[in-house]
Amino acid sequence: MGAVKRTLRTLDDVRALMAVARGEAPPEILVTGGRILNVYSGELLPGLVAIARGRIAYVGERPLKPAPSTTVIDARDRILAPGYIDPHAHPFAMYTPDELARVALVHGTTAIAADTFMLLNSTRGETTHEALTALSTLPLRYFWWLRLHNQGHSQDEAATFSDERLADLLAREDVRAVGEVTRWPALYAGDPTTLARVARGIEAGRRVEGHFPGVSADRLQVLTAAGASSDHEAITADQAMARLRAGLYVMLRHGSLRADLPALAPIATGARAFSGRLMMTPDGPSPGFVHHHGYMDHLIEVAMREGIDATAAYQMATINPATYYGLDEELGGIAPGRRADLVVLNRLDQPRPEIVIAGGQVAALGNRLVAGIQSLPWDRWLRPFAPDAWRPDASLFSLDGVPSPTPAMHLENAAIAVRKDIAHGGDLPEGVLRLALISPSGRWRVRALLSGFADDLGGLATSYASGVGLVVLGRSPQDMAVAATRALDLGGGVVLAENGAVRFELPLPLGGTMSPKPIAAISADLDRLTSIVRARGYRHHDLHYTLLFFGFDSLPYVRLTYRGLWDVVAGREIIPREDLR
Amino acid sequence: MGAVKRTLRTLDDVRALMAVARGEAPPEILVTGGRILNVYSGELLPGLVAIARGRIAYVGERPLKPAPSTTVIDARDRILAPGYIDPHAHPFAMYTPDELARVALVHGTTAIAADTFMLLNSTRGETTHEALTALSTLPLRYFWWLRLHNQGHSQDEAATFSDERLADLLAREDVRAVGEVTRWPALYAGDPTTLARVARGIEAGRRVEGHFPGVSADRLQVLTAAGASSDHEAITADQAMARLRAGLYVMLRHGSLRADLPALAPIATGARAFSGRLMMTPDGPSPGFVHHHGYMDHLIEVAMREGIDATAAYQMATINPATYYGLDEELGGIAPGRRADLVVLNRLDQPRPEIVIAGGQVAALGNRLVAGIQSLPWDRWLRPFAPDAWRPDASLFSLDGVPSPTPAMHLENAAIAVRKDIAHGGDLPEGVLRLALISPSGRWRVRALLSGFADDLGGLATSYASGVGLVVLGRSPQDMAVAATRALDLGGGVVLAENGAVRFELPLPLGGTMSPKPIAAISADLDRLTSIVRARGYRHHDLHYTLLFFGFDSLPYVRLTYRGLWDVVAGREIIPREDLR
Repeated sequence: MGAVKRTLRTLDDVRALMAVARGEAPPEILVTGGRILNVYSGELLPGLVAIARGRIAYVGERPLKPAPSTTVIDARDRILAPGYIDPHAHPFAMYTPDELARVALVHGTTAIAADTFMLLNSTRGETTHEALTALSTLPLRYFWWLRLHNQGHSQDEAATFSDERLADLLAREDVRAVGEVTRWPALYAGDPTTLARVARGIEAGRRVEGHFPGVSADRLQVLTAAGASSDHEAITADQAMARLRAGLYVMLRHGSLRADLPALAPIATGARAFSGRLMMTPDGPSPGFVHHHGYMDHLIEVAMREGIDATAAYQMATINPATYYGLDEELGGIAPGRRADLVVLNRLDQPRPEIVIAGGQVAALGNRLVAGIQSLPWDRWLRPFAPDAWRPDASLFSLDGVPSPTPAMHLENAAIAVRKDIAHGGDLPEGVLRLALISPSGRWRVRALLSGFADDLGGLATSYASGVGLVVLGRSPQDMAVAATRALDLGGGVVLAENGAVRFELPLPLGGTMSPKPIAAISADLDRLTSIVRARGYRHHDLHYTLLFFGFDSLPYVRLTYRGLWDVVAGREIIPREDLR
Repeated sequence: MGAVKRTLRTLDDVRALMAVARGEAPPEILVTGGRILNVYSGELLPGLVAIARGRIAYVGERPLKPAPSTTVIDARDRILAPGYIDPHAHPFAMYTPDELARVALVHGTTAIAADTFMLLNSTRGETTHEALTALSTLPLRYFWWLRLHNQGHSQDEAATFSDERLADLLAREDVRAVGEVTRWPALYAGDPTTLARVARGIEAGRRVEGHFPGVSADRLQVLTAAGASSDHEAITADQAMARLRAGLYVMLRHGSLRADLPALAPIATGARAFSGRLMMTPDGPSPGFVHHHGYMDHLIEVAMREGIDATAAYQMATINPATYYGLDEELGGIAPGRRADLVVLNRLDQPRPEIVIAGGQVAALGNRLVAGIQSLPWDRWLRPFAPDAWRPDASLFSLDGVPSPTPAMHLENAAIAVRKDIAHGGDLPEGVLRLALISPSGRWRVRALLSGFADDLGGLATSYASGVGLVVLGRSPQDMAVAATRALDLGGGVVLAENGAVRFELPLPLGGTMSPKPIAAISADLDRLTSIVRARGYRHHDLHYTLLFFGFDSLPYVRLTYRGLWDVVAGREIIPREDLR
């Protein structure tokens, strides 16, 4: 098992940095004239920052002499802050992690601790390492939390989450946590596999990322005893306080799924004690959220608007997550030896940066990405979503043999679905759609009904569904077949068909999950799809999450999985899967 | 290299704790009715604490049912706080670490991160491991910082601090830091051995304990770039702030050497940002300080008296050091999974505890130690101070052949000595003493003069001198020989002789450094010695430190080492050693 390093600087780095700090060697970059937000002391101080070997060598007021080769950045009347850190990201929300890096960098985020869910499911063997390493060495540096089980139960879960594979990945220095433990009821109940895997994370000195939506203060005691280190699921200040009191680090969530900072902010506006164990995260924002609002810069801005002290708001996005991940000597502050990740701001109340330096390179200037971030070879790395050639036909979506009334999935909001039993006969009742999950190889199907999604819709297919298969919904079996066929032909995607023809498509050819396109383009596509389904009665706030969560069987109360339509609380199928061949 | 664990709880612990938290198994101890200081949220909250397997299983207001075997502790009208942590201890200040544990436990200190200096010097091979392990498993739990070089230069330094030995010890889970780096000028200058050893600590994910007395803000940049994590040497609030700004964790010192909290407190009475990276330490208090004032409880009390918010004062002695050492899921707070280290207080402004629970055992009740702490077999573990039988005679301390004037060590205060050149003829000038360092085997001597210690004194010998040998001082060569002979006969100690007879002796038979006696007895002995030397003109505040620091050649400006009388700043001998046989 690798030692969990507090900083990745090497002896060579140290020697070079010391020479610059002593004035014996010139810096590579010199940022002069600005005021520096010191997250350790909570002050704004004048000073220059000297950078060498991708790290900060010196911070202070002694004039250091630039060499002709030194890049001098004039930060007069500007503020320097540490690069922002997202402690809890899902960097494959239709966009690729490399594309997210491009946009997040422009918005001042220079490090992300991210979910491994997609990589575990869609890569195997050395390819997993190759992809993790490629992302961990971008100008925006990825760190990882290692999932211990799948997001939705899947048929190949045993192989995807084998003990051997987890041990192999846990030895990586860039893996800083295990979790998130989405199956918290299993952890609570003491399920031996879950407990043993969490214990291996503890043994290796890693944090244990919780996922405890709605869990009471009393039950949190059991989960903290089990080893949980943090939670990001509080949606009220009281819930956040209960988590803090239980000894958990708390990540305040504000993103497209839930924008909770206004509700959570009171926890950080009171006594001094709180802020050190608080962080913020957008928790895997939709392409539209990133495109329209930004990233951690937006959260800092909202936090300040909601009354959180400016210094605390920046600390919650810099030194606090660095400390949580045991990286406080590597990231999160402007001090010698740290990675040179910093932002130049026009004003402290405007966290959207003018200049971003990441790993000692100028990464962004204004709206423009300067750092070259090549697209990673996802098409080579990821297993294809639909490897077998076959064409779903309309009969797949008939209700023949489905008893009436039959259990349906009823969407209460973008994320939560309850069970509702619906009678169906020759015609479907108004507002009720057919719902199916089919295996991408056509080996099985799950049939049910869906309400609360839209009033009317020909057919919609989505491979973006927590990796459980192809979800197909609509009123017309023919349109459903057209949409499903096209989604499979594309190698994954979201496709809407009406009157026998494809009306909209958002190809997700990378593992059925991601598009190679820029976030702006994906956002525009999703906006277009959202207005189409809105016109057909979709009323919730985030279509992207509604699609993703069809298969996320840790969310209440009813989900689609390969085992059938699934009762999350009871832990059993309501409608079983039908094997087709 | 061992993983640096964040908590030492095992899977078996976890299962047992969860069962108690779920209410399925009874706790071993139940502390009811108190208000709990929650260092995570900064609140005082009502609740009970359930303990099992030496750890906290549950904290909250749900009534848990005790079994007949459960120890119920009634804490009505009382306050529960986490056990105190000293992040920077030298637990062999004439007392043994096991004796310190006895007294510190009564005063509520339940964990200590300690110096390995004495153990490295006085033990070898597996014995070092045996001693470290014995101390790491006491009710008061010791963790360690691994010295990279000696306190005073010694002849056997190469063997004592070999790379192989350091690597072997660095692999221990209970070794949480390297340092303290007393030879900071070597680190600053980039001395390859020092740098490489610090880099190995960094590589292993350990903290790097600094020791940077008087170092300027500008030079701190170089030392932080080199890898330093903390410093405890600030003596003004400005110095403390400079260290905090440089990204260092800051330990505020308040002990017998220096009692600086009144000067340092302003750093922690301002904005919220500061307190998270601040700790407190007595930095190896004298027996008298521990006996008369206590331990971390005293520091918390002084901090509050000096205007630091009570919650912050407790955090600085609990969760902050735990976080610094990467042990925040093991120690420092009252939350599930943590080691059951807690104190029951009468009032929040009285940190001296009524009851102390350590590792899930009642360790102290009022003034009484309840936990059994057996004396450790130091006489078996430690190399004897004076293995060879020989008797120093008066001629050893004559000034024959010493030129006049000759360099002298002049004590400015208890710790700082400057060079002063003194003429000597037939008689010594008033207030000047002979000073010698002799090897315990009689192989060499260093002769010099001493002023600023006492006006008159027959002979005083001390083996307690940072491990450099036997320091002998006085005006009478005969009395010096009597004192030195007796000190060697005792196997180490502090001996004062007058008129040819031993007038006082404090035997330190354990490696020449420690007494097997209780701290109270050592304190009384030292008080007696202090009044004897005060009557003879000693004017400084801590005799114990004056003796210890004769050989500590990182302190300014003149010290005694085996190389001779040593100029610390110039790094060379002023008077060379004389080899005797």
